[in-house]
Amino acid sequence: MKTLDDSLALHTDLYQINMVKTYWQDGIDQKKAIFEVFFRNLPFDNGYGVFAGLERVISFLENFHFSETDLTYLQEEVGYEQEFIEYLRTIRFTGSLRSMVEGELVFGNEPIMRVEAPLAEAQLIETALLNIINYQTLIATKASRIKQIVGEELALEFGSRRAHELDAAVWGTRAAYIGGFDGTSNVRAGKLFGIPVVGTHAHAMVQAYRDDYIAFKKYAETHQNCVFLVDTYDTLNSGVPNAIKVAKEFGNKINFAGIRLDSGDLAYLSKKAREMLDDAGFQKTKIIASSDLDEYTIMNLKAQGAIIDTWGVGTKLITAFDQPALGAVYKLVSIENDKEQMVDTIKISSNPAKVTTPGMKKLYRIINRSNGYSEGDYIALDHENPQEEERLKMFHPVHTYISKFVTNFEAKDLHQDIIVDGKVVYHTPEISDIQKYAKENMNLLWEEYKRSLNPEEYPVDLSEACWKNKMDHIENVKQKVKQKLERG
Amino acid sequence: MKTLDDSLALHTDLYQINMVKTYWQDGIDQKKAIFEVFFRNLPFDNGYGVFAGLERVISFLENFHFSETDLTYLQEEVGYEQEFIEYLRTIRFTGSLRSMVEGELVFGNEPIMRVEAPLAEAQLIETALLNIINYQTLIATKASRIKQIVGEELALEFGSRRAHELDAAVWGTRAAYIGGFDGTSNVRAGKLFGIPVVGTHAHAMVQAYRDDYIAFKKYAETHQNCVFLVDTYDTLNSGVPNAIKVAKEFGNKINFAGIRLDSGDLAYLSKKAREMLDDAGFQKTKIIASSDLDEYTIMNLKAQGAIIDTWGVGTKLITAFDQPALGAVYKLVSIENDKEQMVDTIKISSNPAKVTTPGMKKLYRIINRSNGYSEGDYIALDHENPQEEERLKMFHPVHTYISKFVTNFEAKDLHQDIIVDGKVVYHTPEISDIQKYAKENMNLLWEEYKRSLNPEEYPVDLSEACWKNKMDHIENVKQKVKQKLERG
Repeated sequence: MKTLDDSLALHTDLYQINMVKTYWQDGIDQKKAIFEVFFRNLPFDNGYGVFAGLERVISFLENFHFSETDLTYLQEEVGYEQEFIEYLRTIRFTGSLRSMVEGELVFGNEPIMRVEAPLAEAQLIETALLNIINYQTLIATKASRIKQIVGEELALEFGSRRAHELDAAVWGTRAAYIGGFDGTSNVRAGKLFGIPVVGTHAHAMVQAYRDDYIAFKKYAETHQNCVFLVDTYDTLNSGVPNAIKVAKEFGNKINFAGIRLDSGDLAYLSKKAREMLDDAGFQKTKIIASSDLDEYTIMNLKAQGAIIDTWGVGTKLITAFDQPALGAVYKLVSIENDKEQMVDTIKISSNPAKVTTPGMKKLYRIINRSNGYSEGDYIALDHENPQEEERLKMFHPVHTYISKFVTNFEAKDLHQDIIVDGKVVYHTPEISDIQKYAKENMNLLWEEYKRSLNPEEYPVDLSEACWKNKMDHIENVKQKVKQKLERG
Repeated sequence: MKTLDDSLALHTDLYQINMVKTYWQDGIDQKKAIFEVFFRNLPFDNGYGVFAGLERVISFLENFHFSETDLTYLQEEVGYEQEFIEYLRTIRFTGSLRSMVEGELVFGNEPIMRVEAPLAEAQLIETALLNIINYQTLIATKASRIKQIVGEELALEFGSRRAHELDAAVWGTRAAYIGGFDGTSNVRAGKLFGIPVVGTHAHAMVQAYRDDYIAFKKYAETHQNCVFLVDTYDTLNSGVPNAIKVAKEFGNKINFAGIRLDSGDLAYLSKKAREMLDDAGFQKTKIIASSDLDEYTIMNLKAQGAIIDTWGVGTKLITAFDQPALGAVYKLVSIENDKEQMVDTIKISSNPAKVTTPGMKKLYRIINRSNGYSEGDYIALDHENPQEEERLKMFHPVHTYISKFVTNFEAKDLHQDIIVDGKVVYHTPEISDIQKYAKENMNLLWEEYKRSLNPEEYPVDLSEACWKNKMDHIENVKQKVKQKLERG
């Protein structure tokens, strides 16, 4: 890397800066703009998502500025003129951010975040915001899927070596913890975020001593808690017997916490190893398994009667292997016009699911007071207050005939003020509290939304006013295109 | 993030530090160890890989040290004793690294890197090394696959918003450039690595002006080179006609460089748009397409006669969507014993492909002087010199009956000295030279290895001495396990 004052303001697509140049020269760069972040489809065909990424977004926005070498680069290499560079030099994030908090359950087509800022600022922050939210939410969701199958047993994150570069290893671990994982092997993630770290030894140590028995003995001489990795040479004929031999020799001098299986037929090996441990009197010694695990292999191993206490999950979690991208987008929904009025905006597509929903909105979770379960999420225009309704009509925003009325409900506003006029007003909770919050949120969902295969579709509905506003905008655009065509 | 002196030495799995504690207390931490990095299978069923990641590995090793807050964390949170913390405080990377250089073609089961270092140091660096190499090599390989289908047209990296956190966006872009991509939208990657940056405007700008025509006009007033994004409302009825209208109005005042299609049926739309541009006299205006592209969709679009000049590839490239992990591992192949002799080590598995190849080795590319093509790669023990052979026997390391003799060849040593006794002796070339080197390397390969579907398997063979050494070690381990079983 060529420079030391690498700022993250340049972590953007070039078109953002080119647009800002147009806005600035045209004098609309300070117009108030409302952008919303949302994704259309949940990953992994899951029934819910777990939101993560806010902590880093806050830090990014708080520190947003172009460094001197950024500006030199933009002037000398990209070719912007001096005056525009001077303008960029002054830019900070002075807008407001309302957002879901981390650990919130999130669904398709609902606003995760709402940015309200001068157009230029709102435009410049898009790429980094999406980069952060897409990855962290993806991993928190994947972790939650896996942890649901793991259940009360322990789930550990072991994926650093397969993560997509260094940031993904640590931020992915944090997201996994939010999604319900119990610990990680990544020490830096432990230090940065306060996540429990775990780990004992690798094959290399057994190889270094060229013998299971000697290696385990040397480890036992230097550590109180011992988990022995038993598959370097031969799991049942060398690894497990030597682990037991060392544990017997050391007796109370060590805590023979577990053995780790990292290859082979985990169902068969775990059952055999359990027998051997039990027969030797080590009923409390745990069996830890790893080897390309994910929710599917774990479910299958459990179905086959594998006796595994702790599940180490690496590659498939940290890369979200079966669907390694979440498609959150950032769309302009309203902007201030020449007359200082806010006007709503829309993006049309031939695919109905891709038409954006105009207007500054709020997002509510409609919780049925009689049973404590969520009836669905409800998107309303900013000025509406669903809590004032006695009987709330909820209907599918595309297939409008699917509808229901809800009474005796609590409408929980899912957005909180995070940044107000450039000032951070939200304090990120401890990571353990975020994990706890995510877990509590799961209790709001009927089981039908939580199963990993073919879950029911959770309702995300528009208020009537919001739906009508969208239909009016679609009609307006159609008319406008038609008139232009007629005029030629 | 809680600390400011975040060093990357902690970017490791906890078990590495636990093993080092054992080595240190047992007095073997300074024993010379040889580790090799290799992967077993090429990603995407591709016929070759493109190595990337060395630049960051060098910077990681050069700066390797535990920071003060790292040490405090290890003592207070993980619980290591003071004396061990003092030991960790002194650790730097004092070993040697021999490695392929970036842009080298790489295949399965061959050593990409060879680390020769005191056991403790070699152990501590594993996780970060693999984290870096796995991702960057994966993306360089994916990019090369895509660029091969794109051919002489331009391929641009547009994936930042879907990358796995910030590091992946910039280092992935760098890897994509090494693999043959022509530019990126990520400005920070442009600055850090000297990659050409590209981009004009997004849907948001059209939405901000609520009209294609006004938006394009405003852009044309403020930029010399104009690429108009035409699919915000209606590609053929509004976007393209308005782009043409603005281009006509501005005439020579702008360079109407292109239009960009970002949704819909790209084959149909590109053909129609080309007609409209040509009819209006803009034969030189390019058509840029993007929308979840990868090598498969690009090949299909070309087969359907799409008229596209520039391909923007995002998600599918930067996440290596169809196989988002490369499985490079780091294995101990030799270690100094009590008598200061090097002894080779092996890791056995019931899967023959997972048995490691013991011994300190070199890797050669055997180039046939008569035609300039590579006959395969040849792994030999360190002391061997295949160039001295007149007639080199190459045979498959598992299916040994597959063999051939090669004469009139050049044996190119694929490893270079990168770090010698802790001192960096290698200077990373300019990124454009790395890209050029990768491209030239492709000329060594027969077309059969380069096709994207079902390529031939490129030979990676062991020398007879290397193969025999491996067989002897397998036999030794089997005997040892058997003897132990007999002794009970």
